[in-house]
Amino acid sequence: MFKPIGAALLATAMLASGAQAQTAAPLDEDIETTTLSLIEQAKSDAVGLKFIEDLTTEVGQRLAGSDEEARARDWSVAELTELGFDEVRVEAFEIPFWSRKSEAVSVVSPAPQNLVATALGGSAATPAGGVTGEVIRFESLAELQAAPISQVDGKIVFIDEETIATMDGSGYGMGVRKRSGCARAASDKGALACLIRSVGTQPHRMPHTGIMARDGAEGAGPAAAVSGPDADQLTRLLTRGPVIVSVDIQTEIKTNAPSGNVIAEVTGTDLKDEIILLGCHLDSWDLGTGALDDGAGCGIVVGAAKLIAELPERPRRTIRVVLYGAEEVGLFGATAYARAHGDHLDKHVLAAESDFGAGPIWRFQTRFGEAALPYARTIQNLLMPLGVTRGDNRAFGGPDIGILARSGVPVVTPGQNGIDYFDYHHTPDDTFDKIDPDEFRQNVAVYAAFAYIAAETGWDFRAQPEPASAATE
Amino acid sequence: MFKPIGAALLATAMLASGAQAQTAAPLDEDIETTTLSLIEQAKSDAVGLKFIEDLTTEVGQRLAGSDEEARARDWSVAELTELGFDEVRVEAFEIPFWSRKSEAVSVVSPAPQNLVATALGGSAATPAGGVTGEVIRFESLAELQAAPISQVDGKIVFIDEETIATMDGSGYGMGVRKRSGCARAASDKGALACLIRSVGTQPHRMPHTGIMARDGAEGAGPAAAVSGPDADQLTRLLTRGPVIVSVDIQTEIKTNAPSGNVIAEVTGTDLKDEIILLGCHLDSWDLGTGALDDGAGCGIVVGAAKLIAELPERPRRTIRVVLYGAEEVGLFGATAYARAHGDHLDKHVLAAESDFGAGPIWRFQTRFGEAALPYARTIQNLLMPLGVTRGDNRAFGGPDIGILARSGVPVVTPGQNGIDYFDYHHTPDDTFDKIDPDEFRQNVAVYAAFAYIAAETGWDFRAQPEPASAATE
Repeated sequence: MFKPIGAALLATAMLASGAQAQTAAPLDEDIETTTLSLIEQAKSDAVGLKFIEDLTTEVGQRLAGSDEEARARDWSVAELTELGFDEVRVEAFEIPFWSRKSEAVSVVSPAPQNLVATALGGSAATPAGGVTGEVIRFESLAELQAAPISQVDGKIVFIDEETIATMDGSGYGMGVRKRSGCARAASDKGALACLIRSVGTQPHRMPHTGIMARDGAEGAGPAAAVSGPDADQLTRLLTRGPVIVSVDIQTEIKTNAPSGNVIAEVTGTDLKDEIILLGCHLDSWDLGTGALDDGAGCGIVVGAAKLIAELPERPRRTIRVVLYGAEEVGLFGATAYARAHGDHLDKHVLAAESDFGAGPIWRFQTRFGEAALPYARTIQNLLMPLGVTRGDNRAFGGPDIGILARSGVPVVTPGQNGIDYFDYHHTPDDTFDKIDPDEFRQNVAVYAAFAYIAAETGWDFRAQPEPASAATE
Repeated sequence: MFKPIGAALLATAMLASGAQAQTAAPLDEDIETTTLSLIEQAKSDAVGLKFIEDLTTEVGQRLAGSDEEARARDWSVAELTELGFDEVRVEAFEIPFWSRKSEAVSVVSPAPQNLVATALGGSAATPAGGVTGEVIRFESLAELQAAPISQVDGKIVFIDEETIATMDGSGYGMGVRKRSGCARAASDKGALACLIRSVGTQPHRMPHTGIMARDGAEGAGPAAAVSGPDADQLTRLLTRGPVIVSVDIQTEIKTNAPSGNVIAEVTGTDLKDEIILLGCHLDSWDLGTGALDDGAGCGIVVGAAKLIAELPERPRRTIRVVLYGAEEVGLFGATAYARAHGDHLDKHVLAAESDFGAGPIWRFQTRFGEAALPYARTIQNLLMPLGVTRGDNRAFGGPDIGILARSGVPVVTPGQNGIDYFDYHHTPDDTFDKIDPDEFRQNVAVYAAFAYIAAETGWDFRAQPEPASAATE
């Protein structure tokens, strides 16, 4: 006999598959009005964009653990204080420090020429004067891993794998695996060094740096990225016969370098112990000025929080802006935050992080409790005029707040169009001029809107469905 | 009383204003058929593109006077011989040699940071360790020239003038004036060094090098180009207060370095002493691999000449391909050629040079005698299906053949669309991947077509009108 499935069980099945609710939760009319006015104000926001311009001009690059990152913390504390935020402070921690001193990659034979290359973060140094060896090319990390030691020993490995440009940045994952794994796999087989085709999506001689594996790169060899055109050049040379390359990477390393998270708040009222966390990261790679990665994210969350702070009345919950330190080199700020605030993560009612440039937000992704999904629908309905469509309920959060999401903190990921993000990130080209002001302000509008609603409604984004009643049997 | 103007005088007036003829000259049917078949074959040409690929891969950059330029000559002689050209040879000459050894430009205060910069060709070296001084910004070279010494003395000059992207490259002229004049004007007023906004049209941190004045830079100070985003950064910093910059440029110079023109021919038949010269330059700047500037030009003229060489019958006149040496640093190859061949310039019936990348040709410009203009019309009519429209009769020729044009040699300038040429030229980004094969082959088709017609018809492109008869009075 046919047995109808219970409504609650059906909902569970749907939501586990990542679908968001079909129905919206009702929203107080005043809150809706204020939200729409925040969105309108964001369209001419000056604070967020100026934050990026000033940070990238008056500080410039902000390599984790460097003097410049320290300067960025001081600058941010002064700026956030000047903007009138509450509880502006630094939560300090220490990290291992790595910096390039010099890098040179060149073809020795058959056609002597320089290649445009950049050392990967955490790369070992070569002996002074570099290492010289024959290049062995692989199409992928997997191919290197499968190669016999005899084929690799004493050579310079070259992994020539392209990065695919996608709107959601998903092509980056494969690139990161290659970037993370090459030095370890190469030196395990006796290679002198590893070169990878830069993890990037543009045709310029502008290689992308980036961290190697946080774990597993210890003791691995030197590693550098060559630009796309240089990877093509190496490949063309290899079709003509053996190629000898020289790799010379000199680095500076320190233990216990200072870093820290910069925190600022818009203190709430009757629910001020409950926190809406808006994150970004303050550190950048050393080649550009970190405008897209992640000056943009900081400008977005600071701009959004400032709009909320300027409302005639503060919302009920506290908006906490966290400018994480040392994200690029291993999410050290994320770990430090979770350690420092681990005893009240239950008070973190919602978290979001902007770390994917300044492209327009096109979908509203969440990771909410199942009964809270109508709230996502309500918010997304309000954002629809900004071009924000429905997302799924499988949001990752972001690199720094992933640890919070894994601890059960509900997260929002406003999905940006990042089709050109990997044209710039981790290169010298990550500069202020690459930010489109209108697209940037659309981001500010989205963050201001959902953060305000979350702060003012008191909604519980962890909410789970009531247990199914036996009556449905 | 009204006096009608003579027909010949009218024609003279029209032509002096640069207009081309309205009527075409008749063309032998066999020649037309062969021309159309050359155009068809060019559409799948492999020789020209392979020439660029091999040259830029197997040699790479070819700085004038360097070992690499010498290698490029050897490579070209071997390649052109292999391709079956006649009379393959090098006409050697010597040049002063300049090369960068190192360059570093950085902001010392208020916000210490590196700027992406490249020394200009011929720049003086700084003392070891560089020079450090306050930046003074000018909107243009003229503004610097008008400034009092007291304002400039002891400072580092920065000329922040943009380059305008145009199809015909005319925006480059202003940029070159700034590049040529800055060091001289700056050091005349006691400046420590000169920085210019890079002469380029792209938004990347990819500064363009290029020669300073061939005359007048002697004894002038150090000079470098900063990329567009770095120029913006300097300007933003200057709006905030005084900016101190350090400029460290180290160079290598030699007198009497070897260079040379590589020459190859398709020997004609009954008119073999009459020469159709097709030129390009073999040297390049040192940052890229000189694919667009001017590997492309060499590929175009070699590809076109090779198509003609493969015809069942050789055309009547000789096609001479000249790969000029040391163009970038002061047109030394052009001067050497004119000196070596000055006694038979009258035998040069036509010259053309390709040195503006590989963008599609859109107009057919000439500098012909007035009575020869119907020939231009005939040729352009045949090229119209390739998208080549009528040009004027004021063609400049090209950098290396300008000296021939000024000596009365008729020239053709197939005008390319160079709207993005100054995105790449003189930068690391001038690499093989930037060449569009189809656009490149359209160039080969155009060169093959007009060179063949000129060689086979025996037309006199110097032809002047018969003196006007007194009867027209």
